[in-house]
Formats: sequence, structure tokens, C-alpha cells
Amino acid sequence: MAKTAATEAMPAQSPSSLCARYMDVRQCSERYCAPLNIEDYGLQAVAETSPAKWHLAHTSWFFETFLLKPYCPGYTPFHPRFEYLFNSYYNGIGEQFPRAQRGLLSRPTVEEIYAYRHAVDKAMGQLLDGQVSKEIAARVELGLQHEMQHQELFFTDLKYNLAQNPLHPIYMPTEKAWRTDEEPQDICWNSFEGGIRLIGSPKIGEHENGPFCFDNETPQHRVLVEPFSLASRPLNNAEVLAFIEDGGYNNPTLWLADGWAKVCSDGWQHPLYWQHIDGQWFEFTLHGLQALDPARPACHLSAYEADALARWYDARLPTEFEWETAANELQKTNSQNNGVSSQFVDQGHYHPSANHNESLFGGVWQWTSSAYSPYRGYQAAAGAIGEYNGKFMCNQLVLRGGSCVSDRRQLRASYRNFFYPADRWQFSGVRIARDRRD
Amino acid sequence: MAKTAATEAMPAQSPSSLCARYMDVRQCSERYCAPLNIEDYGLQAVAETSPAKWHLAHTSWFFETFLLKPYCPGYTPFHPRFEYLFNSYYNGIGEQFPRAQRGLLSRPTVEEIYAYRHAVDKAMGQLLDGQVSKEIAARVELGLQHEMQHQELFFTDLKYNLAQNPLHPIYMPTEKAWRTDEEPQDICWNSFEGGIRLIGSPKIGEHENGPFCFDNETPQHRVLVEPFSLASRPLNNAEVLAFIEDGGYNNPTLWLADGWAKVCSDGWQHPLYWQHIDGQWFEFTLHGLQALDPARPACHLSAYEADALARWYDARLPTEFEWETAANELQKTNSQNNGVSSQFVDQGHYHPSANHNESLFGGVWQWTSSAYSPYRGYQAAAGAIGEYNGKFMCNQLVLRGGSCVSDRRQLRASYRNFFYPADRWQFSGVRIARDRRD
Amino acid sequence: MAKTAATEAMPAQSPSSLCARYMDVRQCSERYCAPLNIEDYGLQAVAETSPAKWHLAHTSWFFETFLLKPYCPGYTPFHPRFEYLFNSYYNGIGEQFPRAQRGLLSRPTVEEIYAYRHAVDKAMGQLLDGQVSKEIAARVELGLQHEMQHQELFFTDLKYNLAQNPLHPIYMPTEKAWRTDEEPQDICWNSFEGGIRLIGSPKIGEHENGPFCFDNETPQHRVLVEPFSLASRPLNNAEVLAFIEDGGYNNPTLWLADGWAKVCSDGWQHPLYWQHIDGQWFEFTLHGLQALDPARPACHLSAYEADALARWYDARLPTEFEWETAANELQKTNSQNNGVSSQFVDQGHYHPSANHNESLFGGVWQWTSSAYSPYRGYQAAAGAIGEYNGKFMCNQLVLRGGSCVSDRRQLRASYRNFFYPADRWQFSGVRIARDRRD
Amino acid sequence: MAKTAATEAMPAQSPSSLCARYMDVRQCSERYCAPLNIEDYGLQAVAETSPAKWHLAHTSWFFETFLLKPYCPGYTPFHPRFEYLFNSYYNGIGEQFPRAQRGLLSRPTVEEIYAYRHAVDKAMGQLLDGQVSKEIAARVELGLQHEMQHQELFFTDLKYNLAQNPLHPIYMPTEKAWRTDEEPQDICWNSFEGGIRLIGSPKIGEHENGPFCFDNETPQHRVLVEPFSLASRPLNNAEVLAFIEDGGYNNPTLWLADGWAKVCSDGWQHPLYWQHIDGQWFEFTLHGLQALDPARPACHLSAYEADALARWYDARLPTEFEWETAANELQKTNSQNNGVSSQFVDQGHYHPSANHNESLFGGVWQWTSSAYSPYRGYQAAAGAIGEYNGKFMCNQLVLRGGSCVSDRRQLRASYRNFFYPADRWQFSGVRIARDRRD
Repeated sequence: MAKTAATEAMPAQSPSSLCARYMDVRQCSERYCAPLNIEDYGLQAVAETSPAKWHLAHTSWFFETFLLKPYCPGYTPFHPRFEYLFNSYYNGIGEQFPRAQRGLLSRPTVEEIYAYRHAVDKAMGQLLDGQVSKEIAARVELGLQHEMQHQELFFTDLKYNLAQNPLHPIYMPTEKAWRTDEEPQDICWNSFEGGIRLIGSPKIGEHENGPFCFDNETPQHRVLVEPFSLASRPLNNAEVLAFIEDGGYNNPTLWLADGWAKVCSDGWQHPLYWQHIDGQWFEFTLHGLQALDPARPACHLSAYEADALARWYDARLPTEFEWETAANELQKTNSQNNGVSSQFVDQGHYHPSANHNESLFGGVWQWTSSAYSPYRGYQAAAGAIGEYNGKFMCNQLVLRGGSCVSDRRQLRASYRNFFYPADRWQFSGVRIARDRRD
Repeated sequence: MAKTAATEAMPAQSPSSLCARYMDVRQCSERYCAPLNIEDYGLQAVAETSPAKWHLAHTSWFFETFLLKPYCPGYTPFHPRFEYLFNSYYNGIGEQFPRAQRGLLSRPTVEEIYAYRHAVDKAMGQLLDGQVSKEIAARVELGLQHEMQHQELFFTDLKYNLAQNPLHPIYMPTEKAWRTDEEPQDICWNSFEGGIRLIGSPKIGEHENGPFCFDNETPQHRVLVEPFSLASRPLNNAEVLAFIEDGGYNNPTLWLADGWAKVCSDGWQHPLYWQHIDGQWFEFTLHGLQALDPARPACHLSAYEADALARWYDARLPTEFEWETAANELQKTNSQNNGVSSQFVDQGHYHPSANHNESLFGGVWQWTSSAYSPYRGYQAAAGAIGEYNGKFMCNQLVLRGGSCVSDRRQLRASYRNFFYPADRWQFSGVRIARDRRD
Repeated sequence: MAKTAATEAMPAQSPSSLCARYMDVRQCSERYCAPLNIEDYGLQAVAETSPAKWHLAHTSWFFETFLLKPYCPGYTPFHPRFEYLFNSYYNGIGEQFPRAQRGLLSRPTVEEIYAYRHAVDKAMGQLLDGQVSKEIAARVELGLQHEMQHQELFFTDLKYNLAQNPLHPIYMPTEKAWRTDEEPQDICWNSFEGGIRLIGSPKIGEHENGPFCFDNETPQHRVLVEPFSLASRPLNNAEVLAFIEDGGYNNPTLWLADGWAKVCSDGWQHPLYWQHIDGQWFEFTLHGLQALDPARPACHLSAYEADALARWYDARLPTEFEWETAANELQKTNSQNNGVSSQFVDQGHYHPSANHNESLFGGVWQWTSSAYSPYRGYQAAAGAIGEYNGKFMCNQLVLRGGSCVSDRRQLRASYRNFFYPADRWQFSGVRIARDRRD
Repeated sequence: MAKTAATEAMPAQSPSSLCARYMDVRQCSERYCAPLNIEDYGLQAVAETSPAKWHLAHTSWFFETFLLKPYCPGYTPFHPRFEYLFNSYYNGIGEQFPRAQRGLLSRPTVEEIYAYRHAVDKAMGQLLDGQVSKEIAARVELGLQHEMQHQELFFTDLKYNLAQNPLHPIYMPTEKAWRTDEEPQDICWNSFEGGIRLIGSPKIGEHENGPFCFDNETPQHRVLVEPFSLASRPLNNAEVLAFIEDGGYNNPTLWLADGWAKVCSDGWQHPLYWQHIDGQWFEFTLHGLQALDPARPACHLSAYEADALARWYDARLPTEFEWETAANELQKTNSQNNGVSSQFVDQGHYHPSANHNESLFGGVWQWTSSAYSPYRGYQAAAGAIGEYNGKFMCNQLVLRGGSCVSDRRQLRASYRNFFYPADRWQFSGVRIARDRRD
């Protein structure tokens, strides 16, 4: 049986007890918010990019709704309307405040939301003080994974929201020179054999002490993979520049029809956040506006751009099954290079660094050609918690690998992220693949 | 020559020197913002309702742009990008940051904007220290009138922005009981003779020490007014309730075609801010959600609603010429009651109170049937400052009289406010009129 | 009392009896449709431009609804659903098929609609055979005037609908050379005295055998008009070209704010129907695509363009009261030139010809600066027929004078046409005015 | 090697020579249009539903563009602008007239379009008179398959366009009673083994005289299919009624998130074309408005509805690989029932009939859960013709089986149709599937 080796390879950094891990993850959310001004907490430029405040509240809502209310007899909700205000999309819980208007909630204030967090944390501390049932432990684990996902969204949403400001606000100043001196490395092609592969993870609880996975990674099931090659690293900015200079954004024959429609309607001429000023290319980052570094991975690409770039390079996007196969293989054969060795947000890096190794994890999420669909035999959990993943299995594509703003404890070979092909505000890039015909 | 009697009737409350008046008006803006949380400063629910922060900055921009830059040699702008960020609509100055995105400017922070204000105030203090030319004095006066207008917009925009929040945030708690005990007074009809009337104000500078007026009130010119009657007070909530209960919002024959289209597309069933909860009517106010008081003037009506209400009451909207005629007449004949005696925002009233007198000023702005058009002979000022009023003279209707959140020093018989007929977020109501045929 | 002199000046071309006039007007609608292909009858490019078929049916619906149903006992409607399908906007009659979808009614077919027309005509013929009551006669007259208005709309809507076709379909070939050889005449300024003028027409029925007028022209009432000058002819294409070449469409200071917003959002760079092909200007007309003739009146201008053009020429739009005053004056003083002497649609002219005289009538409708408002004392008719004009008295501007595609029997000094300031698909132009200060 | 058995099972009805087949298919398009009025030819209710006229012209354009222009030296295009007007989406050929405005092309007239068709047919007859190259033959074959696809679209588009008309126009009267007397048969579950299956067709030209297939069916490739069961027939109207009566359209837990958003935004409460009138259900059909027949297959379902229905029935949509596996299996084991035995449009049936057999073909297209993606190794053809299928491989789902308005000569096990999950105007239904776990 395939192991989700990536997780094992990552050093366990989490404290020993569940309660300690809870506090650790929760404090991390607040630590990430520390550089913000109060004014930054409420920004929401489009429906998709929720305010920082809202992320802080919603993650607390998750624990209140799915742990405190059902498992703490006599628990009094912090505020009677928060169930409505901070419900994201769980119809099983009730109606939701309209997503596009989250930025209009100046009240509760930031201070009140921190008070909410701390009240939830206190109650959770009591709940987790001592022995907890398997059911509670599983829900707490899900809540922590959920919070880590929202920490990542905090960064992507914040970036988008700050980017609307012509003053180019800086989330975190950069210490070192932005541009890499070294020449970008050429892409190498790693070859993989075909065969029937086990994809995904066993269901949670099916084995003792198994690593966490989301329900959308289950059940583990067989997939026929044919021989393929996968690029040693994502396409970098230099390679996207070459595409631009060749007229790639003006050549319909390179694009999917829906992608070309988007290029035309939205006037795409370069990746999101790129700016061409006085003949020079810049990129807006969480470190402010920076000169474009050719050696860094291209990011904030839609799947349409990823697909057009792949076509221009006479290649294609990998399937998610190929990607997972490669991740599992590389882990086995080359354990030291293929762990998660990129630089991450918890190390103060808020932008993908130039790739020096073969790791599939970190840097940028990698678009696959696979529609986000249920695995054969997939069953969503019962009740409202079953709305976590399953109902989104339409119209989206799977991305793999994680980015610099992911929590590296979440990255593993079977992890499936998913966005609409036109979405560009995630740290999404492209690692190209080819059929192997030898 | 017609006197703009209302202004004279109002006791001069302003300090003697221009500089002192400058500081007084400027501090007023900050005093109105004092009850806000930092989070409230950035709210913008729709393009029309600018954030409080933006009002604070834009009014400073006005002095920086039209006084400090041209008249203070060597003046260094506070920030190179503020000219762009806080320009409202002056094409003569340059491009403008998109209006609908003002709420996305978390930077400059509130603190930085106060620093901007204070830097401008300091420089203005130096400019106004001593003798100033007539030209400068006139521009300062315009800047102060402009700032008073934005103080009013601050309240109307804030109200709209807070109203989006289901928590019903309170700008200012109310001290006394909200509902009036007394029965609403019946409407009386005041009759006015016809004849040729002088409408508007003489041009600024045409007479010494004349009261201020905006260019859209000039030139004073002759208008033929036929005999008419005007209601002694605006329609109150009880009267709008009667309209609602008679099916007024569902009867197309009462409405202008464009109004009915709006009723249907936006589902209007009552004035803005009214809520029907468990069989009872409430109204969102700057004092929070309050039980609807039948005796208070109905406000937040569009001109379409005002027109339909008037029709239902077998009456019509007055023309702006009738209104101004009435204001001038009443002032002459009944000086003690027809001054500005309503309760105002500077006295801690942020909602129109039940009317106890015949004043045409304050309470609610009163829609007229008059299109906002240039007076015969109107000339906009030269340069960018000429964009202040003139270019909006299309598609809007004139409102007269001022509201509780106006600065009462601005209210005068000739003052023309203007909004689109569908607009409802101002404190706008309806005082009905009739032809007199006797 | 003012006479609506224009009407008198026009030779009575109508047959003596009401029934004969009925048949004459009705046949005219069909004659105008004769050059169409069946396929042309159904075109509707935007909600405003109804299909030719729909005009044919709706005008018949008018007679069926307002004459045959109430006055012909036992009359059986031609089709039970036509009341719904061909009701334009009369809420008093009932619901209406959505305006924007009229082009989707392939059934009833053109043939069936002609059958409907002829059935209505037959029944009307019986109703009008012999003595008819004053009430019926008045309604028939209104129905005929209504049909003439729709004949004009037939041409404007058809032109817009055909203009969408890159093949430049020709409604009617032109026989003569399109471009005028002569130099365009310079504009002269006609001066008019100020004073109190009678504007509008007496109410229908208030005098015997008075000429027809719509209710929106009533009651006749006094207006104070100040001395003014009016251009001897509308601006012509050469003058609009000069404006274009001076950057008029790219200079915000020339435009009303709402106009400039439209210029930007819709990319206006020239009047509707103009095309710039290989360095040469063309104009799409009902005679096909033609080289732009500098001497012809500019048409298909919005009021925003009219206003900007006037400003550029250091002039302004006239008020509707000035225009009507001028029309009445010119008629009195100069009867032979100021009748309706332009070339009209009933003479095979479907485009305004170069102006050779001083007539205010025909050629192009002339935007005024007057909002379309009720005259003092205006009362809409009772019942559904009262929806004809009154409910549109908001947001629109008055145009005066009529165009080449008007029925010249309708043109008179008091006739008020009205459209939204952004509308361009009518034959609308601009005759500029100035204050007279001598 | 897997045979695309369905095609073989279908009796060859086509004339022997390519030229005869050409004429046969081409005449079929005209025969289908015969019942139309001229007015019906131009209808286009939404961008997706092209006018009948346009289909007639575009299919001719295909032969003109891809056969006559390249292979007939000296061929003069019928009209210089038709290349632009009737190009659907081939960027390789040039710009296209905007899709949403096809209904505005009253010219060329229907008669002119028939003239165009006949001119193309004449030239094609000359081209096909005698021996033709393999390349030409392949293109002609593609053109004929293309025309058959447009014949199907003609019906689906026409139905949608006619459905906008409240008169319920009838394309073809029905002869027999609409409602079936018999009770609907219960669904049976057909079981299929798992294993590696060959999916798709060999590339065209890879074997002699192979049946036609589109490039999106190639290359034939291996897919791992796990054991599954497939319903013996599509869900019928009675079953959808049961879903409605159970509140299925108001229960978010049954729906994909994007589907539920559509249910809410568009107010879906039943399949497209259903109407609830005075307590009874009706269905608009090409035979006019008919009482809903419980025994007929439900059609005009979006994939969202199909998915929700499947979930409610404790089942799921099949993958396209399962569907193709089933089609291939059933053909082998049960040749007499599993051919294409439903009633088709060429037999005068324009609505799916109640299913009396086990055939997977005809009746309604069956949504699969498979994203429309390229098969492993897929290569689009070179040049503009390569835009036929490949560029649409994103955001759409595969449907299988064909409908009553398909050309039955096209139906085969490997045929992939594709639409967006929200699309409802095709004859699309749902055949549910289940995992087999025995």
C-alpha cells in the first residue's frame, strides 16, 4: 500500500498533546496578523478575498459550531448572531451573511474578534484538558487543518486586497536582495513508469495513527497511469516572459476557448500582479513592489495560462494522478531532496524562492489537468461537516504540491487543492508534463 | 433685490476671523468622527457612500489643491500620490482613483490621514495668518462650505454603510424616549401669491459682504411663479404608513414609469431603512434600530416615492421656485418661526425630530419637481474649480431646505441640493404642494 | 391667445372625413413597410428598438383596446393573447409581454399581423361609418396621432436594427448624388424679445375644431422668457467634424459629468452611425452607407453630445420655451419660409437634407435643455389612456421640431418629443442658442 | 481491439457514393427546415441558440472554407463577407461576427441563404464528381458529420427560441395521443465487471474503412474501470416529479455548490420547459405544449439537476468510461435490443418516447460525471480544423448516447458530446449508476 510518504518525511514539529497543538495553530493565525494595521483587517476587494478579520472569526466559529456547541453542555455562544455572520457556506447550520459583504462588517471590531477567539480558546482548552474521545479528537484535528488552510487564504486574500492600493502596501519588508544572481537552471525531465497506482489516502480511522487527510483524498483507490515525464521545477518568470515576448497572450491558437474569452474580456497580458513600468517588469508581492526576478517560479497563473504555457512549451499539464505518482516515487528514491525543502511562510518567506532542488512541495501550487471530482467510492461525512469538500466537486481543477504560504505540515502527496481555472489569486504556477513514448 | 433672508435670520455663530472659522469648521469634521472605531472609517458599501476616512482626506486635499499649491510658494505636498487618491472628480486636476474602490484604501491609515489634515491645517494657518487677498478668502470660504457639505455626506454615507451590518451598529446612543407622545399635527396649507420673483443669489463678489452662495445659485434671475399652496410640514411616517397600507407600493398607476421600474427591480415596499419585524415597524437610525415614530418626518425617500406619495395625497411636488418663494415669504412675515429652528446634528440630533413649527429648513431635504439645471446666465468658474457644480446639471432633481445632518450655517432660501430621483440615502423627504386656483 | 401657427401653416392634406383619414394613416404604415423583406420585420437589436411587426400590431392593438372593445358591443378580439402581446406599457390594461423580447415573437407571422390589421380596420370602418360621438372621434384622432408617432419610430428602430448588420442593408436606394455640392451656409443668429409667453396648447375640447395636441402640451400657460438668440439652422456634419478634430470627444471639460461617463464607458468618438474607414468618414443611413456630407445636419446625437457641441461653440441648448417662442414668432413674421419645408419621409427622403431655409420644423429633432416635466396644471386623462404621456415625465429631455421621418402633419410649435439624454437612435440634432444681452 | 460496435449495428442507410451521401445529408437540413415560417428562421433567444438560418449558412460555410477554397482552383466565394458572417469560432480562419447577434442578420435573407447552399452544393458536386483524394474524402466526411451535429442543434435551438413565445408555437403537430397508457417500467440495474478497458476509437486513417469518429474520441487508450451497475433506462418524468414533491429543488444538501447557486439565482423549480398551470404539469415540446407524460424520459436537465437527482436516488452519475464500457458490453451480449431502437427525428419524433427497451442510444443524452478532457495522447488536427473540438476541453462535462433529435447514424459507443453543467437546452437526461461492491 502506498504511503503518503511526504508527511512522514516532514519532521514532526507539533507539540505532543492535542491541546498544545491546538494552541500552537491558533496562535499562528494571530502571529500572521501581527504586522497588520487595524484598517487592513477589514479589506475585501472581491467576494473571494475575505477580510483578515473574517478569517480570524470564522476559524473560531468552526470550533464553536462543531466542538463547543455539540460537546460542551451548557456552553453559551459568545454572540447570538455570530453563527450567522461567520458561517461560510454550511447550509446544514443555517443561513449565511452574504459572502461579498464581509468587508462591510466594521463591527464586531478587531478587538472584539480577538476576544471571541480567546473565549473560544478558553472553552476549547477546558474541553481538551484531559482525555478526549476519538470523535472529538478527529473534529479538533479537522478544525486545525481548517485553520491552517485559512492561514494560507489569509495571505492570498490579503495580497489581493492590498494589491488594489496604488501605494503598494508592504506586509513585510524584505531583508535581502530580491533578485537572484544565479542563472535559472534548465528544466530536466523526470521519467516515471506506467502501471496501476494507488491514489489517495485510506479513510480516516481505517488505520491507527495514520496521518491526517481530508475526505476528498479518500478512499484510496486504483488508477491506471501510463508512462510520463514531469518537469524538474515549475516554469519560472523568465520562461513566462519568453511566452509574452512571443505574443503568447495575443495568439488564440495557444488557448482553450474559455481561456481565450477571459484573455479578451479581462485584457490579460501577463500574470496577475505583474506591472510593466517604464519598460521594466515588476511584481507586487507581500514584500511590496519588486523588480521581477527571472529565476523565481511564475505564480498567480490561472489554469488557462498554465495550459497555454504548457502548449507553447510543447508539453501539457500533468494529471493529478501523475503528480501524486511522481511525488510518491521521488520520496522513495531520493528522500533527501524531495522532502519539503522550499522556504515557507513560517520562516518569513511570503514569496516563492528560486528553486534549487527537485522538491514537488512548496513554492507554487501546480495546476493539474484533472477536474476536481470525487474519487471512486467517495462518501462525504454525515451532517453539515460533510459540506466541507464534497459539494465543490464541479467546475474546478485540482492543484497539487502547496505553496510558500501553505503550512508545510499540511503538504503531502495526496493533498488536493482546487480552484476554478480562471482563478489567479492563489500562489499557483505550472509544472509541465509530457507523455513518455519510449 | 431679494434678500437671502434665511441666512440673515440665522445667528452668526462663526468666529470673527477667517482663520478662526477655518479651524472651527475643520475641527468639526474631526469631532463628528470621534465616536467611530478605526474599523468604521473605511466602510464603503456602494460607490456613492465614501468612507469617513476618505471624506477627511478629500476635504484636506481641497485646501491643499486649491489653496496651498497655488498660493504657498515652496509648499511641498504631504504625499505625492494623494493628489490622485483624494481627487473626487476634478478632471482639470488629473485622473482620479476609482470612486467605487475608496473603501479598499487601508493605507494611508486613519492616523496618517489625521496627520495629513494637521499638516494641511498648519500650512493653512500660516497662509491665513494676516491679511489675505479677496481671491484667497473666497477660495477658503468655498473650501469651508465644501467641508460642511462633506460633513453632511459623512453622516449619510456612514448611516448607509452601517446599515449593511445586521448587528445594527449605533453611531450615538439616544438619551430620551424615541417615540413622541403627542399626536402628529395635521398638515395646513400655506397660500402664496403668484408673480415674477427673483430667484437665486447675486453672483459672489457682486456686493460687499454678501452671504456666501454656491455658483449654482447664481445669477439671481426672474421667474414667473403662479399662485400655489405649500404644506406646513413634510409628510410624516404615519402618512407613509397609510400609503403603504393602501397598497401604494403595489399600484403602478401612482408612479412615474421610471419609478415603477425601480420599485419592481429593487423590490421597494417601504422607505429605505424601514424594517418590518414580527408585525412591527422599525427604522435604522444613527441612534441604532428604533421603533418607527409616526410623528417624525418620513425620510430616505427617493423622488419617485415622494412623487407617488404626493399623487396619492392629490397633490404634487413643489417646483424649486415655489419653494424658494415660500421660504423668502415666510421669512419676511413670520420671522420668529421660520428661521432654522429644527434640531440639528451639532446639537446631538442625528435624525429629524417631530416638527413643531413651520420652518422650511432642517428636518428633511424636500424633493422638488425641478430638474437641476443652470439658471439663466449661469457661468461656471474658470478652471478645475468650475467643475464643482456645473457639470452635474443633468438627470438630477433639486432638493431644498436642508436636513438635520446639514450644517445649519449653510441653510438658506437659495441653497440648491441635487440628487438623482432614485437616490434614497440622503435625509430626503417630501413637502407637498398644490396649484392655487382661487 | 397664442395660435399653434405651425399647424395652420401646413396645408391640410388629410381627407375630409374621419374614416377616410383613418384609412389614410393606417395605409401609410403598410406603405412604409413595403420595401421590407419578411426577415426584416422581426429585428430588435435592443429593448428600445421594437420590430416593425410589433409596431404594426401595437398600433392595431391601440384601436382594438381603446375603441373596438369599449364601443363596439359584441366585438370579439382578434386573438385572446394579443391584448398581452401587443400592450406596450399600459398597466391599466394589464400585464405586458417583456419589451426586450419582442423580437422573439416569430408568431404571429407577418401575414397574420396584416390579417389582424385588416380585421381591426374593417371593424373600425364600421364604427366610423356614420356619425360618431365626440368621445369616439377624439380617441380615433389620438389613435391616428399615435400611429403616426409609431411610423416615425418604425424608421428610427429599423435604422438601428439594420445598422447592426455589417452588410449595410439598404431600406431604400438613393436616386441622386448624396453629397451636396454647395458650401454649407454659415449659421445666423435670430434674435427674440423677452416677455411673458403663452406656452403649450389649450386643452383638447376647450375650443371648437382646434387642432389636435397631446395632453403633455396642455394646459396653455404663461412662462417668462428672457431675450435670446437662436441659430438659423442645426449644426451640420462639418461642424461636428471640427469638434472631433479639436479633440472634443476626449476633453472632459466640455461635457456634463453623466455625458463624460457615457463617452468613457461606451467609447463614443463620433455620432452614432458614423464610420471611419480608411481615412474617410461614412454614415449609415436608410439609403445605405454613404460618404458623410458636410452640409447636412448632424443627427443621431445624444443630448450629451448636443450639450458639449453647444459649449464648444460658446453657446447653449435652447429651453423648450425659447424654442416654442421662436417657432411662434417666425411663423408670424415669415410665413413662407417657416412652414414645414424640409424634405420628408412621405416624399421619399429618409435622411435630413442640407438646410436651405430657416424652418424650425423637420430635418432633425432639436434637443432642448428642458427637462420633460408636466406643465403647470397638467392633468393626465382618466384611465389607462392617461398613461400615454404623463408617467414618463422624469429623467428625459424635451426635443422640438420634428425630423425628416416625422409625419409632417404632426409638426407644430407646441409639440413635445422626449428622450433620455443618452439616447441617440432618433434623428436628433442640435440647434444652439445664446442669451441675448443687449 | 475494441470495436465501436454501435456503428456497425446500425443499418447502413447511406447511399453508396460519397457524393450521394453528401447530397443526402445536405437535403436533410433543408427538409428539417421545411415546416418553418420565414419569420422562424431568424430567432435567437440567447447567444447559445443560433437561428435556423445561421445553421444553414454555417454548414455551407464549412464546405466552402475547408473544401472549395483550398481544393477548387479558381473558386469564387459566394459572397465576400460570408467568411466573416458565418465563421462560428475558427480563429485560424479569421474574426467572427459576434455570436450573440446572429439573430440580427435579416440579410442575407432565407432565400439568399438557400441560394448560397445550392451554389456550394453545385460546386461540391463538381468536386466530388469522380475520384477524390483521401484527404478530401476525410474532410467531406467531417463536413457531413458536422452538418448532422448542426441538424441536432437546429432542433434544440429552435425549441428554445420558440419556447419564449407565450403562444406555444408548434413545429410539428403530433398525430397520436401524447400520454402513454402503460405504467412506467421500474429501473433495473445492469452489472458490469471491472478491468482495464479500451476507451475511444483508433485514430482516423489508422485502419482501412474504419467508421468515422471525431478527433476527441481518439486515441483509443486504456482506462481502469471498477465494477459498477448502470440503470436500465434514464429517469423518467414521474421520478423527477417525486423529487420535486419531496422538495428536491429547495434542499441545498442534495446539490453541488455551483448547482445550488444556479437554483437560487435562476429560480429553478423544475426542468426547463415544464410549466405548472392550474395544478397540472405541462411540457413545451416541438409538438407544442403537452400534458406531462410520466413515462417519458425526463429531459432538458442540467448536470446539476442530474447530479442532485442521482444523489436523491442514492446513486451517482456514471463516468464516461463506465458508460462506454456498458455500451460496448451490451452490444456484444444482446445485439438485438441494444442497437439504436428509440424513435428518432428522421421518423417524425421530436421528443423522447417512453423507453421500451434497454438501449443506451437515443431518447436523451445522458450526463456523465466525466469532465470533457483530452484522452491521453490526444492531438488536435493541424490548422484551423484543429479548433473543432480540442479547445473546448475545459469546464464542460461529457454526455453520452445521443437523443431523439440526434442523427442516428452518428450514435456510437465512443461518441462524446459535451456541454456546461448548467446547460439545459439540449435533450439531456440522466441514467444513474452505482458502485458495485460484491
